[in-house]
Amino acid sequence: MLGASEQLPELKRGAHEILLEADLLKKLARGKPLRVKTGFDPTAPDLHLGHTVLINKMRQFQVLGHEVIFLIGDFTGMIGDPTGKNATRPRLTREEIESNARTYEEQIFKILDREKTVIDFNSRWMTELGSAGLIGLAAQYTVARMLERDDFAKRYKGGQPIAIHEFLYPLVQGYDSVALKADVELGGTDQKFNLLVGRTLQESYGQEPQVVLTTPLLEGLDGVHKMSKSLGNYIGIHEPPQEMFGKIMSISDTLMWRYFDLLSFRPLAEVEALKRAVADGRNPRDVKFELGVEIVDRFHGAGAGARAREEFIARFREGQVPDDVPELELSIEAGGAKLALVLKEAQLVASTSAGYRMIEQGAVRLDGERISDRDLTVVPGAAHLLQVGKRGFARVTLRARAS
Amino acid sequence: MLGASEQLPELKRGAHEILLEADLLKKLARGKPLRVKTGFDPTAPDLHLGHTVLINKMRQFQVLGHEVIFLIGDFTGMIGDPTGKNATRPRLTREEIESNARTYEEQIFKILDREKTVIDFNSRWMTELGSAGLIGLAAQYTVARMLERDDFAKRYKGGQPIAIHEFLYPLVQGYDSVALKADVELGGTDQKFNLLVGRTLQESYGQEPQVVLTTPLLEGLDGVHKMSKSLGNYIGIHEPPQEMFGKIMSISDTLMWRYFDLLSFRPLAEVEALKRAVADGRNPRDVKFELGVEIVDRFHGAGAGARAREEFIARFREGQVPDDVPELELSIEAGGAKLALVLKEAQLVASTSAGYRMIEQGAVRLDGERISDRDLTVVPGAAHLLQVGKRGFARVTLRARAS
Repeated sequence: MLGASEQLPELKRGAHEILLEADLLKKLARGKPLRVKTGFDPTAPDLHLGHTVLINKMRQFQVLGHEVIFLIGDFTGMIGDPTGKNATRPRLTREEIESNARTYEEQIFKILDREKTVIDFNSRWMTELGSAGLIGLAAQYTVARMLERDDFAKRYKGGQPIAIHEFLYPLVQGYDSVALKADVELGGTDQKFNLLVGRTLQESYGQEPQVVLTTPLLEGLDGVHKMSKSLGNYIGIHEPPQEMFGKIMSISDTLMWRYFDLLSFRPLAEVEALKRAVADGRNPRDVKFELGVEIVDRFHGAGAGARAREEFIARFREGQVPDDVPELELSIEAGGAKLALVLKEAQLVASTSAGYRMIEQGAVRLDGERISDRDLTVVPGAAHLLQVGKRGFARVTLRARAS
Repeated sequence: MLGASEQLPELKRGAHEILLEADLLKKLARGKPLRVKTGFDPTAPDLHLGHTVLINKMRQFQVLGHEVIFLIGDFTGMIGDPTGKNATRPRLTREEIESNARTYEEQIFKILDREKTVIDFNSRWMTELGSAGLIGLAAQYTVARMLERDDFAKRYKGGQPIAIHEFLYPLVQGYDSVALKADVELGGTDQKFNLLVGRTLQESYGQEPQVVLTTPLLEGLDGVHKMSKSLGNYIGIHEPPQEMFGKIMSISDTLMWRYFDLLSFRPLAEVEALKRAVADGRNPRDVKFELGVEIVDRFHGAGAGARAREEFIARFREGQVPDDVPELELSIEAGGAKLALVLKEAQLVASTSAGYRMIEQGAVRLDGERISDRDLTVVPGAAHLLQVGKRGFARVTLRARAS
């Protein structure tokens, strides 16, 4: 196992915050594998690259010899929303949770080492805890401190109801750290309060408090908003190689470095070398190729990335994209817009009906792909390369129109 | 079973508040026995007459044909104070709770009908509820509503900590009403908030909400402060007949009617007749005799009251208390004062040392009882008849000196 000071830079890579870094150094300095906990919702997982930032951080710990625990919060999942008001929090059955766990496994083991990953379920200790144990747990934290959590504070001040069980969920999450004797807990920045509850509870239960490490939210293809399904600016880890590669090639050169930080497994030193090369004149597109190959290989197996790159190059050579393609931003309806309309707005055709005609004639390409569906709809949140005929090109970033 | 309108006046007797009276009438009008719940702490019970006000109210329901449930809150008792900060809330074992339950039985069946009383324990359903069930329960109530409870509101505003489990206890108490399908819950005025939580929860669980009936706190012998052990102004139900009778005789004529309301089992009509008799010139002392006989009979068996009255009369005849005994109030140390000092302050002797001497000579009586212990200490909160020699009399009410 590497020394603490050698491990630290890699563990800090892309991290949003570490509480407390001194504690992490102390724990690392003992030279023993740390128990690294990360909690996941038991609802049906369908991961995109944004989700993998956290899993990549788990991988870094794993590669450095630590024990990572993929904790599925099935206990609260089986309760669902007891008020029945929250339709997005259905009550899951044992079978659904097991099926979701298998779906998780299929996805996370493209990143984590199956042999070295512990998958656990918090119902294992939460059910046993019982009603009396839960009351004992609730005694360890005060109402005032709980009301300090941002969203609780806002809702309380705004007169919006907070049901009392919502105070119990952070305690359940914190108690998971006690039950697992976690040394480190990883989570998104929005989880910070809950992760800190874990620290407090571990101290109450006589344990050394865990180190809290938060990872940032990954920006989507537009480079502005966080990657999300509903914004349409995402790369799903199940997407076909060609699509995945094409989307990565569509991101800006600035965003590329952010993705290298948060998504690439290359050592920091290699990433630094690539940055220097670009500064010295290397075409950023070639570096983006390397990122694309790495990501596609990860989710589709070694070799898939190189094949996707060759196909991408071939398609573009065919289309021969000039160097001076105009870049523009267009606002479209949140629900999407017809490609024909977008062609008109991008001034590649004179009218929407001309746009339809060009599509029907097979003269229109979207990201190098010939389009035959005249009614094709594009959605906001993505950047696309549009081509009409041999010479009409535009690189458009689609935004949702403020409604 | 009597009609609703005939039952109502007796059930309202001495009650502090009924929420809602219309609901009670509706339930009574169905002509079926109501399920009447009253919760008790599982800590070692040693009841005084103040505690019996609530039990007397249970008895009224029982006499009218309803089903009373004496509910021992053993579930929370077995948890104790999970923060370990509250020494007055020890964690009780199963054995201690069973022993305390037996002690309760010995005492309450002097008032309630053993054959018609259900004794239950809330651990029966609270343990089964489990941690998931408790979370579901907590979802039925909001933080804001809980913070409306007087003591919570004060502590929150005053920056004093409220542990989150304190929010769960009123919910547990309310859930007891759900589990028991209670029609009515009785409790002291200080329990009003918790009893109302029961109403809310029953509605959440699809039940008709219970009627809440609160009983007032009984004033102690001084007629001012609530009866309590720590104030020394109480009549314990285990006190010997002579002492019990003597203490009842020491209360004021005004307080006597309060005691008739809250402690006597005589029908309201009889109490009214006694009031009229006194207004027409009957000696209130004779009416107080009837109260004393009833109470002593209750706790020491039929006949014990009459014997206590005869002994009381004999002793006083011996002492021959004049009609014009001066009444006065004295302030003494909260921890008590020597009788010799009190005699001096009451101006029955010239000095404290004269007081000691008179006691040694057997010339001093306290409530008709000859005193031989020169160092006897009296405590604040009680009224006493003092006698020195044949002709020195004073009726003193002892108050604790403000410190």
